[in-house]
Amino acid sequence: MNDAKFFGLAFSKVRDSHISSNPNPSVGCVLIALDGSILGEGLTQRAGGPHAEIMALRDAAAKGHSVQGATAYVTLEPCSHHGRTGPCCDALIQAGIKKVVATNTDPNPLVAGQGFARLRAAGVEVEVLHPSDPLAIQSRELNIGFFSRMVRKTPWVRLKVAASLDGKTALPNGASQWITSSEARTDGHAWRARACAVLTGIGTVLQDQPRLDVRLVETPRQPHLAVVDSDMQTPLDAPLFIAGRAVFIYAAAKNDAKAEALQAQGATIIYLPGHHADGTPTGKVDLAAMLRDLGKREINELHVEAGHKLNGSLVREGLVDEFLVYLAPKLMGQGADMANFGPLTALNDALPLEFKSTEMVGPDLRIVARVTGRDLF
Amino acid sequence: MNDAKFFGLAFSKVRDSHISSNPNPSVGCVLIALDGSILGEGLTQRAGGPHAEIMALRDAAAKGHSVQGATAYVTLEPCSHHGRTGPCCDALIQAGIKKVVATNTDPNPLVAGQGFARLRAAGVEVEVLHPSDPLAIQSRELNIGFFSRMVRKTPWVRLKVAASLDGKTALPNGASQWITSSEARTDGHAWRARACAVLTGIGTVLQDQPRLDVRLVETPRQPHLAVVDSDMQTPLDAPLFIAGRAVFIYAAAKNDAKAEALQAQGATIIYLPGHHADGTPTGKVDLAAMLRDLGKREINELHVEAGHKLNGSLVREGLVDEFLVYLAPKLMGQGADMANFGPLTALNDALPLEFKSTEMVGPDLRIVARVTGRDLF
Repeated sequence: MNDAKFFGLAFSKVRDSHISSNPNPSVGCVLIALDGSILGEGLTQRAGGPHAEIMALRDAAAKGHSVQGATAYVTLEPCSHHGRTGPCCDALIQAGIKKVVATNTDPNPLVAGQGFARLRAAGVEVEVLHPSDPLAIQSRELNIGFFSRMVRKTPWVRLKVAASLDGKTALPNGASQWITSSEARTDGHAWRARACAVLTGIGTVLQDQPRLDVRLVETPRQPHLAVVDSDMQTPLDAPLFIAGRAVFIYAAAKNDAKAEALQAQGATIIYLPGHHADGTPTGKVDLAAMLRDLGKREINELHVEAGHKLNGSLVREGLVDEFLVYLAPKLMGQGADMANFGPLTALNDALPLEFKSTEMVGPDLRIVARVTGRDLF
Repeated sequence: MNDAKFFGLAFSKVRDSHISSNPNPSVGCVLIALDGSILGEGLTQRAGGPHAEIMALRDAAAKGHSVQGATAYVTLEPCSHHGRTGPCCDALIQAGIKKVVATNTDPNPLVAGQGFARLRAAGVEVEVLHPSDPLAIQSRELNIGFFSRMVRKTPWVRLKVAASLDGKTALPNGASQWITSSEARTDGHAWRARACAVLTGIGTVLQDQPRLDVRLVETPRQPHLAVVDSDMQTPLDAPLFIAGRAVFIYAAAKNDAKAEALQAQGATIIYLPGHHADGTPTGKVDLAAMLRDLGKREINELHVEAGHKLNGSLVREGLVDEFLVYLAPKLMGQGADMANFGPLTALNDALPLEFKSTEMVGPDLRIVARVTGRDLF
C-alpha cells in the first residue's frame, strides 16, 4: 500500500492552499498510474472554482497523460451534486478512472456517501479509510470547520487568549498590549487567517479599537469580522471597517438610525435578541442563534478574540470548541481572567479540556486545548 | 576528548543518588586508566559520609586496580578542607592520581579553588570546564540548591502550583482537591523529595491539613517542613508532625505556652518578626530572614506548596527563584490565583520568567519557569 505516500503528497499541497479554498473544504487529489507514477495533481479552489479532482484531471491532460485505468487519491469524498460546479464523480468516471481511494466521507448532506455510490454504480472501485485512520483524522482536522458547519450547522469555535502564566489577560487598569511576544502575535495572525471569520465583542472594540485583520502574515483574503454588539455601540469610525471583508454586527436592540449609519460603513446588521426561559428579553445577543446564523453565512472556523466577559458567556453557554492559548513567561498577579464564568462550587463542574498540542512560539508557550467531546460530531 | 563520555558516566550515577546526598552536593567521580578503562566509580554519600572521590578510590581498591597515573573525572571541585570528612585532594594526591578533570569550581567558600590549587601544588594536572560548558551547567543545575546556599546563603526557592489552564488554584469556596491528575501529584512528590525542605503557610495547614511529606514516590529520607505561622496557630494534632523529619515553625508573635506544646510535638520554633521601614512590627514573619535561617540550617532546595497569600508575599518580596506549575486541562472561571500580589499598573512590572521546560505529565502540562536572572549568582 502506497496510500500514505500518495495521501502525503495530496496533503502537502493542501496545507499550502488551506486558506484560499474557504468556505470550500481543503481537498487534494493525486492521480496515480498503475506503475505508481504521478499523472496529475489538484487542489480544491476558492468557492465557485473547480474542485481538486477536476484540477488533477486538467493537470494530467495538460501534461499529456492518459488517466485511463488510473487511481485517484482524494482527501475527501468526490462530490455528486451540482453545486457551484459540476459533480466530480461524473468527471472521474468519464475520464476512465478505475479506482478512487478517499480519506473521508463528505459530511455535506448533499454528498454523504452518494459520491461513492455513484462511482461504484459506474464500476469504479472505491476504498474509504476508516474514520480512525490517521490520514482520515488529518483530513477531518484540516477541515474541522467545514465538518462542523456541515454536520452541526454552526462554525468550529476557536477562542484565542493571550495571558501571563498565571492566567491574566489584562491588568486591573485594562493594560493588555502586549502581554505576549511579537512571535506569538504573528502566530496568532496565522490562526486568524485560516478562519473564515473573527469574532469579537463591543467591549474590545471600544477599549482596544482593533482592526482584527490579518497583517503579520500573508493571506489571500481577509477573514470576515463578527461583532457582538447588543446595543449597537460600534463607532462609525472604528478601525475595523476594512475594504474587502464583511462586518457582521449582531445586535439585540433595534436602532434604525445607527443601523443605517453602520450599514453605510459596510456593516451588515443582524438582530438576534436573546430571551430568558420565561420569554422576557435578556437585552443581549442570542449567542447560539448567532452561531447558527454564521453557519448559514458559510463560516467554517470562527476565531474568537474577545474580552473575559464575552469569553465567559461563550463558555457558560457551552459554545466554545477549542482554546488557543498563548502563555507569556511572566506573572501579573491580578487582573482580568481568561473567561469570566462561574462561580463553580465543585471541581467536577470545571470545563473539561484536552491538551491537543503545546509548542514554544518565541519565548511564549502556545497551547491548543479542545473541550472534551466537542469534536464528536 | 572522552570527557563527555566519562562525565556522562559520573552523572548517570549522580541522578540516581541525588536525594540521599543532601545537604551535600550530588557529586560523581570516575577514575580512568591511561588506556581508557574504568578503574573505580564513586558518589558523594549522605552528609558525614565519604565524598565521591573517596568512594571511587575505595571502589578501585576493592576491585584490585591500581590508580597510579590515572585521571579522576569529578562533577565538582575536590574538597580541600577538613569538614565532616578529610580533604579529598589529599586522598587523590596520596593515591597517585595524575590528572583531575572537574566540571565546576566548588562554590563553598571553604573550597572555592583551593582544592585545585592544592592539587596543582602537589604536581597533579588540573582541568576545569568553562562555566558555559553544558556539562558544567548540568552539574550546577543538579546542585542549584547547594550553589545557592553556598553563594547566596539562602536556599533555591522553587514554588509549586497546581492550577487549571486559566490559572485558578482553588474554587471560590476553597475546593482544590484535586485540580491536577494523580500522575501530576506523583511527579510533584518527586520534586518534593529532591528538596531539603518543604515550605507552607498556616492557611494551607488549617484549610487542607496536609502532611506535605513524600508518599507517592520512594525516598531515602523525608524533606524537612517549614511553616510560616506568624501567630503560632499550627494545631498540636496537625498531621504534619511525622517521625524522622524536622518541623520548623516560623512565628512573629511570642506565645511561650503554645511554643512549648508545639516543641513537645517535635517542632522547632523560630521567632523572626518582620518590621516596616519605620521600625514598627508587621505582625508577620520576616520571609527574607526566614530564608537566611533556612540557609543556616543547610536547606539547599526549598519546595514551596502554599496558598495564594504566602505565594504572593514571596513574589512581592522577590524571594522566588523558580515556579513548578502543573496546568490541568480544564477551565475553572473564578477562584484563587497562583500568587496574590499587585495590583500592577504597567505590564513592564510583571514578574519576568523564562520557560525552562514544558512537559506533559499524564493529562496535565508541567511548566518549569525560572525568574529571569535569579540563577546569576
